[in-house]
Amino acid sequence: MKVGARYLGGGRCRFSVWAPIQRSVSIKVVLPESIIISMDREERGYWCTEAHLSPKSRYFFNLEGDVDRPDPASAYQPEGVHGPSQVIERSYPWKYLGWKGIPLEEMVMYELHVGTFTPEGTFEAIIPRLPDLLDLGVNALEVMPVAQFPGERNWGYDGAYPFAVQSSYGGPEGFKKLIDACHGQGMSVILDVVYNHLGPEGNYLSEFGPYFTDKYKTAWGSAVNFDGPFSDEVRNFFMENALYWLGDFHLDALRLDAVHAIYDLSAKPFLEELAEAVEALPGRKRYLIAESDLNDVRVINPRDRGGYGIDAQWCDDFHHSLHALLTSERAGYYQDFGSIEDLSRAYQDGFVYAWRYSTFRKKRFGSSSAGLPGERFIVFSQNHDHIGNRLFGERLAALVSFEALKLVAGALIISPYIPLIFMGQEYAEDTPFIYFVDHSDEKLVQSVIEGRKKEFKSEGDPPDPQDPQTFLQSKIIWEKRKEGHHKALLDLYRELIRLRKAYPALSNLRKENLGIALEGDVLIIIRKHSRSDVAAVMNFAKKEASFCLDLQGKTGKKIIDSSDRAWKGPGSITPDYLSQIGKFHIRPLGFVLYELF
Amino acid sequence: MKVGARYLGGGRCRFSVWAPIQRSVSIKVVLPESIIISMDREERGYWCTEAHLSPKSRYFFNLEGDVDRPDPASAYQPEGVHGPSQVIERSYPWKYLGWKGIPLEEMVMYELHVGTFTPEGTFEAIIPRLPDLLDLGVNALEVMPVAQFPGERNWGYDGAYPFAVQSSYGGPEGFKKLIDACHGQGMSVILDVVYNHLGPEGNYLSEFGPYFTDKYKTAWGSAVNFDGPFSDEVRNFFMENALYWLGDFHLDALRLDAVHAIYDLSAKPFLEELAEAVEALPGRKRYLIAESDLNDVRVINPRDRGGYGIDAQWCDDFHHSLHALLTSERAGYYQDFGSIEDLSRAYQDGFVYAWRYSTFRKKRFGSSSAGLPGERFIVFSQNHDHIGNRLFGERLAALVSFEALKLVAGALIISPYIPLIFMGQEYAEDTPFIYFVDHSDEKLVQSVIEGRKKEFKSEGDPPDPQDPQTFLQSKIIWEKRKEGHHKALLDLYRELIRLRKAYPALSNLRKENLGIALEGDVLIIIRKHSRSDVAAVMNFAKKEASFCLDLQGKTGKKIIDSSDRAWKGPGSITPDYLSQIGKFHIRPLGFVLYELF
Repeated sequence: MKVGARYLGGGRCRFSVWAPIQRSVSIKVVLPESIIISMDREERGYWCTEAHLSPKSRYFFNLEGDVDRPDPASAYQPEGVHGPSQVIERSYPWKYLGWKGIPLEEMVMYELHVGTFTPEGTFEAIIPRLPDLLDLGVNALEVMPVAQFPGERNWGYDGAYPFAVQSSYGGPEGFKKLIDACHGQGMSVILDVVYNHLGPEGNYLSEFGPYFTDKYKTAWGSAVNFDGPFSDEVRNFFMENALYWLGDFHLDALRLDAVHAIYDLSAKPFLEELAEAVEALPGRKRYLIAESDLNDVRVINPRDRGGYGIDAQWCDDFHHSLHALLTSERAGYYQDFGSIEDLSRAYQDGFVYAWRYSTFRKKRFGSSSAGLPGERFIVFSQNHDHIGNRLFGERLAALVSFEALKLVAGALIISPYIPLIFMGQEYAEDTPFIYFVDHSDEKLVQSVIEGRKKEFKSEGDPPDPQDPQTFLQSKIIWEKRKEGHHKALLDLYRELIRLRKAYPALSNLRKENLGIALEGDVLIIIRKHSRSDVAAVMNFAKKEASFCLDLQGKTGKKIIDSSDRAWKGPGSITPDYLSQIGKFHIRPLGFVLYELF
Repeated sequence: MKVGARYLGGGRCRFSVWAPIQRSVSIKVVLPESIIISMDREERGYWCTEAHLSPKSRYFFNLEGDVDRPDPASAYQPEGVHGPSQVIERSYPWKYLGWKGIPLEEMVMYELHVGTFTPEGTFEAIIPRLPDLLDLGVNALEVMPVAQFPGERNWGYDGAYPFAVQSSYGGPEGFKKLIDACHGQGMSVILDVVYNHLGPEGNYLSEFGPYFTDKYKTAWGSAVNFDGPFSDEVRNFFMENALYWLGDFHLDALRLDAVHAIYDLSAKPFLEELAEAVEALPGRKRYLIAESDLNDVRVINPRDRGGYGIDAQWCDDFHHSLHALLTSERAGYYQDFGSIEDLSRAYQDGFVYAWRYSTFRKKRFGSSSAGLPGERFIVFSQNHDHIGNRLFGERLAALVSFEALKLVAGALIISPYIPLIFMGQEYAEDTPFIYFVDHSDEKLVQSVIEGRKKEFKSEGDPPDPQDPQTFLQSKIIWEKRKEGHHKALLDLYRELIRLRKAYPALSNLRKENLGIALEGDVLIIIRKHSRSDVAAVMNFAKKEASFCLDLQGKTGKKIIDSSDRAWKGPGSITPDYLSQIGKFHIRPLGFVLYELF
């Protein structure tokens, strides 16, 4: 069942809203003129009608003649989460209708937050930067949630209108313009969508129907009713939402936020139903990517093996292994990580915790993902969460040395998974990315501030999330990339991505072609291919180390060394050619690639 | 990790208890003499010690020098749920150690409640009735829960000591004696175990550790902590419990009560881990049978298809289809059933609701079980729940005609599933089976009574569950089976079970061999086999009906007709032989079997 206001052309608009607990629902048009339009109760609690209205009309739903509420499926909230919804024209003059999409296994993702990526904080302001990203080698833009949230500053996970594009970002038109521009330049666009909860401000859904359940708890508010009585229509709402983004917005993929908080014990879980529906879409292949804190292979297993058939999931274990190893941090979730063996396991299997005891979680955790192809996992050395969930939102560039940042670049980009770069990481951006909000409800603001303080109680006072300065401080400064160490890292990222695409051994993500060797602090990843193998030698020690490389009768030719002066390093000490077994030396935190042929 | 008191012989006993939240735990022996024995804190919150004690010693655990509590893993509570635990000798003079077990697919199950099956209400009193059950054809005795519950009258689902055998039933010795007697006569024994909650009275587990979680809710109290912090040891407790019954008690199978209330979002759910452990047991095959209200094929799917690998599950849909069709009842869960097509679907697939909209549940429900072999489902036309959950606990014999009872017998016994008979059903027992308890906590009694009243508010006042008369009224009267209609039905059941075992077409549970035809109120089930087919013709109308049978060139020979005078029917009107296609007549509610060869 379609939900929301669908403009049919010729001044006609079809409305439908699921409000089974209301005894009367009408449309209250407030712009361009004030009119009340009655609605008819149809099957399963839907209220529908068709009306004559111009496409920019603004309206509320009036519930039982009592309160005016925005449309839960509003496509646009020009006056914010409490204001009227606006009817939009669905048609858009798409220029690149023939866009074929980037296959998942070829993606190099770039996660950005619209508000802090540019000084303007809009979709439109992103467009001039696309050539820079393309030049870097990025071919998939992952946009943090854009669903209308309260105020103008938010990470996006407080969205209250899943179908509405944030007005301060440029609304639906702005987003379509960005997507079209990306497609025109050969870049896929992935949207982060939140189906596990709705933001606390401006969310009136429970006045319409049983969208939520108290059967389960989430960290962020009421759990969405995906498996209780009346859940069919709740599922329809979110299913329609996914299809809306993939359809009307031509998006290439959705990143499903925190699916572990989508509590659903149905015999056919919503995620499985969604994966089926997306798979059945005509035209180019669209992807679903889950964020999951379960390490449950069921999420990404194919459906004939009892899985949901989600295309890929974020691999936190890879991040945690790398981060804990390099920073020696052991607080919170990092206490489960820190050994180079963990990182080795992440390269080998994906999940480091595959039904192994987790000290952090105080229980055995995860299932084995061994044998799954590399494109089932998205890996990252930073992302909005792992930066922003820190007291001061420090990026890795503020925590580790420049040599370490280059090692991280190598470790990430040559991994047998899909790499994701968080905006700015490619040029060692060192501004923080801090948690920020812009609520209008003073009580809520206080509770967010208190919650934040409680989270970090032993560490100190966090920056005030509501303070506009917190937001402004989190904006990245694009100009930095032009010089010094920033530029050197950017150049290295660009070269690494070029190599990843150029060498079949690196672009092939089959795990059968993976070899791993561990010598002290040196981790060697060998990626095999019929043409030539590639070996990545990574020294995670802060001192020079030695390594042996089993050439298996082949000859090794150095492709790149992060210690090179070209990348503002101390100078490479690894041999340019390897022709026999021997002990070689590598710089502290060095990353070296050899082609073996 | 083993839990409880393990008597090692020679006056030595090893104790261990998981009490991570306690700062000191000691053993307070109260019989034969008063002693305090200190315990050592070991890894993961276990407290252990080895002591010199006689096997009949009674003890409490003393928590922080403060309160005395029975052992959560007590093997015996001779003085009830609040009294001391007793050390028992594990050895038992088993007579039938060579017992091989009945294969699941050959089982004919008989569910009984120890307290109401005999006047004595003990394990021992069951033994003299085993020859009668064997004579009926039953080869698997399913015993309703025996874990120590409060008082002497309880269905068993209020058990507070999962390892202790109800003292008033005869305790562990009595249960072993019954099991040994069953094995000696060629009968498997299945025990109903409750892992989704513990009874409200006498359950002190949360004083020991985080056995429970408030993350999820069950209808019967706190959910067990199967997936939260510290859940490894909670899982260990129930895992050890399952292995205790299958090991120390030589049980052949466990029936896992209400697994839908075992909330567990682990990447490796407890049920999967349990199925793996049971599969790995040496010796004869043991079975796990789930009761599940999810219609989720994942429970019984093999693990390489993402399932838990549980051997079988109870099929409520078969029961509901049959019950609603025959009684025309449409209240509660019966509102989803009533058409003969539903029953036909139950024969065909198992689950009638396979992601179909359920009016009762107000959502789509279930997944397809098509293609699974018949032994994955246990079917029944009555069981403790569907009788006892009625206001007056009426059995089918009090609701439908004698002819209908015979049709039910046929429909059940010739089904391509494992049939389960609820005690007394085989001889049309017409005493009720009412919900009864024997709590000592007056508040709890009132709340049970109120809960019961609320459940049936529109129907009337239910019998007082606490009143001993309610329990006594629920006892079956074994002597009835000797005469009149009771005897006729018993004879029919006996003959049907004999036929089920004698005809390969009936004992083969592969679904590939199933054919179904529906003509008005007549449902025809054809079971094919290379030797000869068997066709069951069932008239669900209360009037005479006609049917055609596609003989496919074969000849039909009547095997049995429930309308026969031999079964105190009005006399058969179906032909003894069928040699050509024609229209034949069948009595109201008639059940006829033909062999086709």
